Amino acid sequence: MEENSAKDAVFVASEKPQGMDVIVEGPDFNHYDERKKNGGSGISVEELMHSYGKMGFQATHLSQAIEIINEMKDWRDPNPPEGKSEKATIFLGYTSNLISSGIREILRYLVQNKRVDVLVTTAGGVEEDLIKCLGPTYLGDFHMEGKGLREKGLNRIGNLIVPNDNYCRFEEWLMPILNKMVEEQETLGTHWTPSSFIHRLGKEIDDERSVYYWAYKNNIPVYCPALTDGSIGDMLYFHTYKADPRPINLDIVADIRNVNSHAVRANKTGIIILGGGIVKHHICNANLMRNGADWSVYINSGNEFDGSDAGARPDEAVSWGKIRSDAKRVKVYGEVSLLFPLIVAATFAK
Amino acid sequence: MEENSAKDAVFVASEKPQGMDVIVEGPDFNHYDERKKNGGSGISVEELMHSYGKMGFQATHLSQAIEIINEMKDWRDPNPPEGKSEKATIFLGYTSNLISSGIREILRYLVQNKRVDVLVTTAGGVEEDLIKCLGPTYLGDFHMEGKGLREKGLNRIGNLIVPNDNYCRFEEWLMPILNKMVEEQETLGTHWTPSSFIHRLGKEIDDERSVYYWAYKNNIPVYCPALTDGSIGDMLYFHTYKADPRPINLDIVADIRNVNSHAVRANKTGIIILGGGIVKHHICNANLMRNGADWSVYINSGNEFDGSDAGARPDEAVSWGKIRSDAKRVKVYGEVSLLFPLIVAATFAK
Amino acid sequence: MEENSAKDAVFVASEKPQGMDVIVEGPDFNHYDERKKNGGSGISVEELMHSYGKMGFQATHLSQAIEIINEMKDWRDPNPPEGKSEKATIFLGYTSNLISSGIREILRYLVQNKRVDVLVTTAGGVEEDLIKCLGPTYLGDFHMEGKGLREKGLNRIGNLIVPNDNYCRFEEWLMPILNKMVEEQETLGTHWTPSSFIHRLGKEIDDERSVYYWAYKNNIPVYCPALTDGSIGDMLYFHTYKADPRPINLDIVADIRNVNSHAVRANKTGIIILGGGIVKHHICNANLMRNGADWSVYINSGNEFDGSDAGARPDEAVSWGKIRSDAKRVKVYGEVSLLFPLIVAATFAK
Amino acid sequence: MEENSAKDAVFVASEKPQGMDVIVEGPDFNHYDERKKNGGSGISVEELMHSYGKMGFQATHLSQAIEIINEMKDWRDPNPPEGKSEKATIFLGYTSNLISSGIREILRYLVQNKRVDVLVTTAGGVEEDLIKCLGPTYLGDFHMEGKGLREKGLNRIGNLIVPNDNYCRFEEWLMPILNKMVEEQETLGTHWTPSSFIHRLGKEIDDERSVYYWAYKNNIPVYCPALTDGSIGDMLYFHTYKADPRPINLDIVADIRNVNSHAVRANKTGIIILGGGIVKHHICNANLMRNGADWSVYINSGNEFDGSDAGARPDEAVSWGKIRSDAKRVKVYGEVSLLFPLIVAATFAK
Repeated sequence: MEENSAKDAVFVASEKPQGMDVIVEGPDFNHYDERKKNGGSGISVEELMHSYGKMGFQATHLSQAIEIINEMKDWRDPNPPEGKSEKATIFLGYTSNLISSGIREILRYLVQNKRVDVLVTTAGGVEEDLIKCLGPTYLGDFHMEGKGLREKGLNRIGNLIVPNDNYCRFEEWLMPILNKMVEEQETLGTHWTPSSFIHRLGKEIDDERSVYYWAYKNNIPVYCPALTDGSIGDMLYFHTYKADPRPINLDIVADIRNVNSHAVRANKTGIIILGGGIVKHHICNANLMRNGADWSVYINSGNEFDGSDAGARPDEAVSWGKIRSDAKRVKVYGEVSLLFPLIVAATFAK
Repeated sequence: MEENSAKDAVFVASEKPQGMDVIVEGPDFNHYDERKKNGGSGISVEELMHSYGKMGFQATHLSQAIEIINEMKDWRDPNPPEGKSEKATIFLGYTSNLISSGIREILRYLVQNKRVDVLVTTAGGVEEDLIKCLGPTYLGDFHMEGKGLREKGLNRIGNLIVPNDNYCRFEEWLMPILNKMVEEQETLGTHWTPSSFIHRLGKEIDDERSVYYWAYKNNIPVYCPALTDGSIGDMLYFHTYKADPRPINLDIVADIRNVNSHAVRANKTGIIILGGGIVKHHICNANLMRNGADWSVYINSGNEFDGSDAGARPDEAVSWGKIRSDAKRVKVYGEVSLLFPLIVAATFAK
Repeated sequence: MEENSAKDAVFVASEKPQGMDVIVEGPDFNHYDERKKNGGSGISVEELMHSYGKMGFQATHLSQAIEIINEMKDWRDPNPPEGKSEKATIFLGYTSNLISSGIREILRYLVQNKRVDVLVTTAGGVEEDLIKCLGPTYLGDFHMEGKGLREKGLNRIGNLIVPNDNYCRFEEWLMPILNKMVEEQETLGTHWTPSSFIHRLGKEIDDERSVYYWAYKNNIPVYCPALTDGSIGDMLYFHTYKADPRPINLDIVADIRNVNSHAVRANKTGIIILGGGIVKHHICNANLMRNGADWSVYINSGNEFDGSDAGARPDEAVSWGKIRSDAKRVKVYGEVSLLFPLIVAATFAK
Repeated sequence: MEENSAKDAVFVASEKPQGMDVIVEGPDFNHYDERKKNGGSGISVEELMHSYGKMGFQATHLSQAIEIINEMKDWRDPNPPEGKSEKATIFLGYTSNLISSGIREILRYLVQNKRVDVLVTTAGGVEEDLIKCLGPTYLGDFHMEGKGLREKGLNRIGNLIVPNDNYCRFEEWLMPILNKMVEEQETLGTHWTPSSFIHRLGKEIDDERSVYYWAYKNNIPVYCPALTDGSIGDMLYFHTYKADPRPINLDIVADIRNVNSHAVRANKTGIIILGGGIVKHHICNANLMRNGADWSVYINSGNEFDGSDAGARPDEAVSWGKIRSDAKRVKVYGEVSLLFPLIVAATFAK
């Protein structure tokens, strides 16, 4: 008889699922094989991304991210769809490693073509872009041994290798600029902040491969409160020993007012955050000033169990008022180099 | 003076990087915008995947996975490239949740079109395919509450919802088949194993949407040593109370001989493993019998720090002789629903 | 004026938090320093674990796991606390790697002292315990290179090294036993299942260091539906070529009835699952047969975003009826070797 | 015959493992049961942590972390062991969420008792400590819904809840202090930096429960280059609208010189980093100035596959010269609230 109670547990009846009308299904590659046979094209990036919507798991999240960003984009259109007359301001944050990777060219594309309005990154996210104009970063391997690399002056970032010579070249390039900046501070009373500092470097690098050249050119502000936390900081540190009568002052208070003002003054805001840490928190915190962003997309490989801001789901930001409770929002769990090119191909570069 | 020792540490000179000649770089979407303006097409999946090769991090790994699978595929070509006359046997493993997701249609495509030779999965990876022929799986959300779902008879798998009714229908479908199977065991002396059981179910389902229908049709074996660990097991459990004189016997020893024989007899083997657990270990273990696979691609979101087989890098399998030390191999760290459609689009469905 | 709207967003007033009366706080080591100065002892494992309850994040989860297991334990007491007269059945699942690690000795302690009732593991979780009686496993490193290890016949499991000789010894030990088992099958009609096979190996190993020796001795059943997925499977494969007239038959249907019966017949059930994959699913599935477990503790490093059963939260199992909706349940996100010794010290070995 | 080649692959002989003499083994709780029966104590935290050394996986890493920190500690001893006369400087970094959790009390213990020399944290890591002196943080749950929480003015941090009122109190407390600071800037020419700002807040809070009170008292510097990235930044933002003639200037260049000088002037350095992001990079970067730290312990739940600095292994820092190639170093993969109390119990609070 024992199996009878088991049957009662196993064969409970279902109510009709409420509000769930999408049946899970993947793309049928037979269809595209057929199309090719008939002289047509294979599956396009957009078609593939569209098919992700019904696949479940993170494929569905990626498809939602694309939908949300396309909505942000519509709101920035010079000829917006009906009912979308107010302009949306897009905040884009990204960690340093992404500039070291080939994501840099995609970020450069977005800034060059004015697809985003405010950038937030970390020190490495600034300097590695400039340094790439002075010397290349190479593909390596995650398991190259640190000791041997140090002996050869090769710095590892995941599976990337940056020759230390690049930093020597960076010093040669940066030091004369710092001299001029300190002179302007003394003679013109220039009050430097991380964002005005980055703006100046973008001007000085004068290289169309650079994200910050285009940020300068297109007047897109770049916020980086901890700008000293990297090679630029090393150079500023060395420069303090040279500067006379006093070193450059980099004020972070003026910049917090600047970044918050973008959020407060915007009609609508959309946030796109690649990775975690300060770039994530800084954009969300600025959007608290306007009682929350209107659209939000996170892409990172963190998880919430450790209580970190980096791993927190968008819903945590809702509790703080950083994202509106009615905002369209999604987090895609995954590594950015895999996902962001797909997203851009299906949105800004569509 | 203290800054001088610091400078010595910061500005060490570099040797030229040996064996690293790929400069990290991402795709330039300006190029594709231009092409579109001139009446051409946007970036294709293949072009995008090709660009991943130079991007670093997991983008590079994904690109390597595609390259390796294309090499496996070349070796299975009826008209193989020069020097590749021996046929390669491809083992494909995948976890249950992938059959629940839209990856099922992609797996069905591969099996229908005979792109792979041996399948390994878990119990859910078998039954959820068959059950989908009897009733749909819906898109839901990762945060639907368990209590309310249970009250409504709705089962959650990540962000997917399977109505419990589907399992009732599965019972109705399966029980008469089990009756026939037990009869064949008694009258014909049929010695059932998980793989012959799955073969039979594929025949019985007789539905072109099913992975296992095509596995039956194309005579592609499916190994699943723990076939009782799921709904099929529930049905077999209930059936033991009906079966007379004795229940179905499912022997796993005959199947271990079968799966190992595929590996031992193959000229070359390639392995593609989606997810971890038994499907990963079982394929690798079979390939130990031939002193290692010749090509290997892992896609999963595990990490090695916990010493699990699921999270182990391919290099751990090399130490065991499960992958050859000269085999091309890569692990892509990511979620399968995001990555496998891209891989198939750029390899088997190219 | 723009700062005024920002202030409205930032300074929203709070309602009193409902149902939250625990203030987050960590242990004060000054107190224990003081106690030591006064001739007392330092902080004990139990005191430390107790302090975890108020710390937040996974510390709180670990403390809850300990509380839940202590409740399971109370229900198994020969002299149970008032109102807890019915005996609880504890299911313990663990993956293969844990037997390879020093967790083995802790599992052995639990089985030896009859603290748990039903074990579920994978093939490696069986054989590595037996093999450790024949030769040692060594501490190594996660980054030892596979090629060199293979050349030396050393197999890596995370940061552990198992000399391949151990498997040769295992063959020498196992083959004569397989001969006897096949003989018993032929002459006595013994119907072997994975659990009866493991029971026999526990008897044959006759070594007090072995988990399965004590499982045999204390008649604690061990379920392992995919018993062929590892070294035992290799040996069974080789043995099929010797066995005459027919190889050992290992039937998994009889075992699914056995494991389910434990769940159905139990008054109460508690489940403790270390790691993911089949050991997690198998225990949960058996508990579906009784409409859900009464207490549940998961410890693993998986996350839910990939829709895997391995990474699913306990609440997913509630939707299926595998854990009761009123069951005390928790998942601790972490690596088992770090956490399980603490749990056992504060529960079964208290 | 096919099984013969399989046997050759399976039964390769082993060389004796070189340099591996530790046999994997866990603690034997029978021993401690026995000791208790004889009137002794149960297993102590130190004994348990010692047993972790031989267990493998992360247990071994945790044991190594304890060993390394005890070595750092020996070098700071007023009566150092023979040969360890030079004083070691310990850098401790931790993310904001840890101050929100009960780890705060443990950090306070270390600072109060002068066990560490330099602190690096993020904005939240400063303000949440001060705010806890003004109002409590409560235990909540990871799955409380953001919308409802926002309506009630309750902010979620993982499974912790901070009533928004606490931030209102923080404003009341901070604004008068900012007034004084701006006055000192104008009248005394005080040049504020994040570290001098935090020093002042530590003095003003005047509460023995505060980490920063003790940092002030014991003159332990606290670096936080992005101090504006949180509630303090919100207050500074609002204060800019009040400040007359000009707002507080917070200069990050002076602080990069300060933090680097600690590293350059130290005889030896040890680094302990809890979590990732800027706190990890900032400490490592400062140690580059001295050609690398002498001891290094990371505890976090990141992984290297995404090329993030947060997830990078210590060996990546070796390639940069941030950790010496002969330094003892380890990363423990796990959540800090679970592990750091154990570490402190077995080291600084031993």
